Amino acid sequence: METIFSYHHLREFTHEVFIRMGCSLDHAALATEVLLSADLRGIDSHGIARLSGYVRLWEAKRINTRPDIKITHETPSTAVVDGDSGLGLVVAPYAMEVAMRKAGEVGTGWVSVKNSNHFGIAGYHAMKALERDMIGMAMTNASPLVAPTFATERMLGTNPIAVAIPAKEQPPFVADFATTTAANGKLEILQRKNEEAPLGWIQDKNGNPSTNPHELKNGGALLPLGGDREHGSHKGYCLGAIVDIFSAVLSGANYGPWAPPFVSFLPLAPDPVGVGLGHFLGAMRVDAFRPADEFKANMDTWISRFRAAEAIPGKEVLIPGDPERETYHHRLDNGIPVVAAVVKDLQDLAGKFDLNF
Amino acid sequence: METIFSYHHLREFTHEVFIRMGCSLDHAALATEVLLSADLRGIDSHGIARLSGYVRLWEAKRINTRPDIKITHETPSTAVVDGDSGLGLVVAPYAMEVAMRKAGEVGTGWVSVKNSNHFGIAGYHAMKALERDMIGMAMTNASPLVAPTFATERMLGTNPIAVAIPAKEQPPFVADFATTTAANGKLEILQRKNEEAPLGWIQDKNGNPSTNPHELKNGGALLPLGGDREHGSHKGYCLGAIVDIFSAVLSGANYGPWAPPFVSFLPLAPDPVGVGLGHFLGAMRVDAFRPADEFKANMDTWISRFRAAEAIPGKEVLIPGDPERETYHHRLDNGIPVVAAVVKDLQDLAGKFDLNF
Repeated sequence: METIFSYHHLREFTHEVFIRMGCSLDHAALATEVLLSADLRGIDSHGIARLSGYVRLWEAKRINTRPDIKITHETPSTAVVDGDSGLGLVVAPYAMEVAMRKAGEVGTGWVSVKNSNHFGIAGYHAMKALERDMIGMAMTNASPLVAPTFATERMLGTNPIAVAIPAKEQPPFVADFATTTAANGKLEILQRKNEEAPLGWIQDKNGNPSTNPHELKNGGALLPLGGDREHGSHKGYCLGAIVDIFSAVLSGANYGPWAPPFVSFLPLAPDPVGVGLGHFLGAMRVDAFRPADEFKANMDTWISRFRAAEAIPGKEVLIPGDPERETYHHRLDNGIPVVAAVVKDLQDLAGKFDLNF
Repeated sequence: METIFSYHHLREFTHEVFIRMGCSLDHAALATEVLLSADLRGIDSHGIARLSGYVRLWEAKRINTRPDIKITHETPSTAVVDGDSGLGLVVAPYAMEVAMRKAGEVGTGWVSVKNSNHFGIAGYHAMKALERDMIGMAMTNASPLVAPTFATERMLGTNPIAVAIPAKEQPPFVADFATTTAANGKLEILQRKNEEAPLGWIQDKNGNPSTNPHELKNGGALLPLGGDREHGSHKGYCLGAIVDIFSAVLSGANYGPWAPPFVSFLPLAPDPVGVGLGHFLGAMRVDAFRPADEFKANMDTWISRFRAAEAIPGKEVLIPGDPERETYHHRLDNGIPVVAAVVKDLQDLAGKFDLNF
């Protein structure tokens, strides 16, 4: 049920779709790179599978493909960026660049973004810092699908956090995770296979535990990391809330249940409390704390010591970023598997724009 | 099995113990305030129950009560602070002050601390930022008790994260949580009552799920938030790792399994990779992003909207910090309950220093 496409093939096609949407050449190239970094890293839910979703948001005039992205407020270590309803795929790289420039000047840079849209995988943006010997951080709020502890109402997105930390000989530490028990993408996989979800991932509309992967369509909700109160779901709720506030209350974007949905068929919340979706990007120069070589050598020790930790027989202790890096290299060489439903979706898109896929 | 003591009584006693340990008047007063903020906020495991532990660390010459705390490296928005083996209870407030001063100057301030000891509750330090219209953050590494996903070895502490965010009319948002399913203090409560722990909190020495609250004495481990791989324990492991790296690799403290244990009867790890324990403190001026009044009015909206979220019948959606604030006011007025084992411990301490308790 999957077809393998080369990265090159998917890139050509995606680039052309962004061009047809009206993006500049630079923006189309950047948006393509950011979007497909998800497919390369194995986060299939956030890559080319979403391309038609971006097109539908553009058709609904919720995405401006010729945005005037700019800084609206700043201090030496902070800025607010207005994305002018642009693709998050190009707004977030702009904001991350501002954060890194400020880190270069005063040690750290922190940028809260308003008036944006879905920015792809958080990890892409955080990893941009690595090549400059900086720690990168990226977070974003998202369509409300998550019920806080004890709530039956969806108030938060899956609000991911990514942190990328450079090492010397070892590959970098790259954490990139939704602040829910399981990302929505994992649920989508179970939906396609019609398999049950583990308890602790979702609840029904009354707040009862559920294993039905289709429960969200019936008013159910994803659960914060922890799953239930006894297992610390209030901590996952805190994390999702912090991401929401840093991304959207600091910047002036829509927060909580007002966050604009990714799917264009859902209406925007009435009486918005801000503009568009919000992100938060950060960069810290490691030599703002200690010599970069010394820091990176200690990261090598950290990584090799954790990788060597005693493990359950047959298992190994992974370093955050290990699985995605392996997938990246494998898919770059051997191609990217795309499930039939997404292939169909892309063929429809090709038809719409008179392209080949 | 509990005795109620007034805050005043516990404060007088604790202050005198710190004086007998050789602290200056200023340091004794500060350490007392920080330590007992845990008891007032209902985090009993981190308050006066630990006082005799600090005394034993001092007797073992692992705590220097006359520290020369200083900045060893800095940029406009960052610093590394050397705690000179001082009480974390006084080192962390110094570092937080540095972070807030830098935030005043360039928008944000970020301080990584080495050569410190246990700093009490993270929330105390983060909340210092509130009175200056700043967002405060505090984290620390801690005695290795937690096994990463698939590990049988204890590699990380319960590594808490606190984030405090000011509002206008509403009380502030204060998240303060261990990056494990359950904090060690919750396990201690079950140990005293000889009750079973829920599955997902701990594992035995072979990595099997366990409900025995005494399992850590047999080589077992606490589990990262999420509990197991299927429920996202790799995310809790990421969080604990990020806290460890920000607190100790950035500063030059001991990280991972090298973090010095709080209990004085355990030896320090051979071949240390740094000095003492590490913390990470941060402050962001909200008006470095948007006018403070505007930000705080939106936080009021955030808080009241979340508090009004539809809830499971009989339950309500809480705002992070709600339960601790209620406990704080109640205990300040009505006294602090101290369990018999801790009362006995404090009476022994009184005997040692020829004090009354």
